[in-house]
Amino acid sequence: MIKAIEWCGDSIRFIDQTKLPTEEVYLKTCDYTVIADAIRKLKIRGAPLIGIAAAYGAALAAVHFREGNLNSFSQQILRAIDELGSTRPTAVNLFWALERMKKVLHNGTDIEQTRKSIIDEAIRIHKEDEEMCRRIGENGAKLIPQTAAILTHCNTGALATGGEGTAQSVITTAHRQGKSIKVYADETRPLLQGARLTTWELMKHGMDVTLITDNMAAFLMQQKKIDIAITGADRIAANGDVANKIGTYNLALIAKHHGVPFYVAAPTSTIDPSIPSGDKIPIEERHKEEVTQGFGKRTAPEGVNVYSPAFDVTPFNLISAIITDQDVYKPPFNFSKLKK
Amino acid sequence: MIKAIEWCGDSIRFIDQTKLPTEEVYLKTCDYTVIADAIRKLKIRGAPLIGIAAAYGAALAAVHFREGNLNSFSQQILRAIDELGSTRPTAVNLFWALERMKKVLHNGTDIEQTRKSIIDEAIRIHKEDEEMCRRIGENGAKLIPQTAAILTHCNTGALATGGEGTAQSVITTAHRQGKSIKVYADETRPLLQGARLTTWELMKHGMDVTLITDNMAAFLMQQKKIDIAITGADRIAANGDVANKIGTYNLALIAKHHGVPFYVAAPTSTIDPSIPSGDKIPIEERHKEEVTQGFGKRTAPEGVNVYSPAFDVTPFNLISAIITDQDVYKPPFNFSKLKK
Repeated sequence: MIKAIEWCGDSIRFIDQTKLPTEEVYLKTCDYTVIADAIRKLKIRGAPLIGIAAAYGAALAAVHFREGNLNSFSQQILRAIDELGSTRPTAVNLFWALERMKKVLHNGTDIEQTRKSIIDEAIRIHKEDEEMCRRIGENGAKLIPQTAAILTHCNTGALATGGEGTAQSVITTAHRQGKSIKVYADETRPLLQGARLTTWELMKHGMDVTLITDNMAAFLMQQKKIDIAITGADRIAANGDVANKIGTYNLALIAKHHGVPFYVAAPTSTIDPSIPSGDKIPIEERHKEEVTQGFGKRTAPEGVNVYSPAFDVTPFNLISAIITDQDVYKPPFNFSKLKK
Repeated sequence: MIKAIEWCGDSIRFIDQTKLPTEEVYLKTCDYTVIADAIRKLKIRGAPLIGIAAAYGAALAAVHFREGNLNSFSQQILRAIDELGSTRPTAVNLFWALERMKKVLHNGTDIEQTRKSIIDEAIRIHKEDEEMCRRIGENGAKLIPQTAAILTHCNTGALATGGEGTAQSVITTAHRQGKSIKVYADETRPLLQGARLTTWELMKHGMDVTLITDNMAAFLMQQKKIDIAITGADRIAANGDVANKIGTYNLALIAKHHGVPFYVAAPTSTIDPSIPSGDKIPIEERHKEEVTQGFGKRTAPEGVNVYSPAFDVTPFNLISAIITDQDVYKPPFNFSKLKK
């Protein structure tokens, strides 16, 4: 079992993801600023995991600030929360988790009770995420046949969440159920989360995993090497359109062409009924250096233009099912009954 | 005008492609073993260019071996040809060019005449390739509208041929004709020929070129940023199926889905009427290290399985036209009239 982050009572232990896959280094700290720095430097990454880490960071502050009255205690924790919140400007889970911590702080009546409530809330955020992963895994595994070759994109596993992941939880749950699973992980340019993290995690699980480059997937499907494709989601619109890591739309299109089921697995919180369709989802553009010199060596000319969208939008009609912790939705997608 | 290789009378000048795109280094040599080494170390790459370089290598040997009679001269040149031929085991153009040199050598009557004939034959091989590129460019440019955004894959330009290239010659010819061309070059994993070489060449031409990763192409087409996609070919079957750099089939599929014309440009010699369809074309598998540590740094776990086909096969029904030096073929493809 990979533990990307762990609360140790008065300290946090986490894996330094920037050292993966060549080194497996765990860091332990009592200092919330180390956690803030780790989030900033991508030692801790993956939207749900960032939220959990920030909550634990606030809990660390609560454990170690020991002087003054409730008011000065609260001021110190708020400063810590502010610093933790300033690390990744677009991480929704980060703000959401820290808002929960602020609320607990706001309701505090004395230092000891507040300290304990803050720690409990951080642990609760982690446990909820773990449970969400477990449910996605169980709901999704029902769609996986006894023997299957599954292609996945990006990293959606234990290194991104508080549990076993989203799409990847479906894969590892099916494996644990005794199904015969062969995984193809595409490398996921530009940041290579598939090559660096997904292969590492699945090898830790003792699973059969093969790395390919993103542009090989169509050829593999043509050769009937792939039975199922599954990815995570960053945001799901009311009609079932899915915004996810760049390359997802490409994969969904070629899966459709080859009759390969294309599944999306994500927490219920990813579904945003206020957005009618995918074309309304804003797409972040990334720094050109991630494409031109991402891996220690410049691989394109100085001054070259680069277009690097972080996400793409997959239209609902390419998606065979959306798996959440609550349910498995099949087209036509209708999320009106979902509990938020 | 980029000159990847140049015959200087008694020496060869060539660009060291392993230094691109960060350094533009030209090497000059009188020693054919330097050419053999340059081919072996990929300083000179691209199938047609390798053939030309090997022919010039044999010519260098002919210039500089000055002792003995015709028989000993021939023995020396044959040894040089053998060494040049041993550099890249699967390069068809290499053997084809060296066979032409052997034939000239075989027909030699005295040292001076043979030396001159060998040099002339090498220059002829180069000129023929240059002319072939020019014709492909002119034939293909007729298909390019006055304003076009063109997506291309891999490197098919001056760094791969004796002229302006194949698919890339279509692009640069259209540009020279005054058409308004915007190029998107995909990086072409695993070896990044698009990122390293195509962008560099097109920037040298003063063209508007933007680099993307391979998995972004579908998203660009969804946004209507691409009018035409064009690639080269390694081998074309009698029915029009095309074997080319891995990722070509992926691109052809998504182009078809978005109604983007998909063109293939290649010399007539690439068409192999003896192969009825693409599934009969053998596909080479590449070393896993090209995927796992292609960026100067290991980016996947030690011991991970990798599947890395060098080429894929695009079915003829995805191809809008095949452009050669002789003609532009449209579906249904019929090559029965081609002159070989």
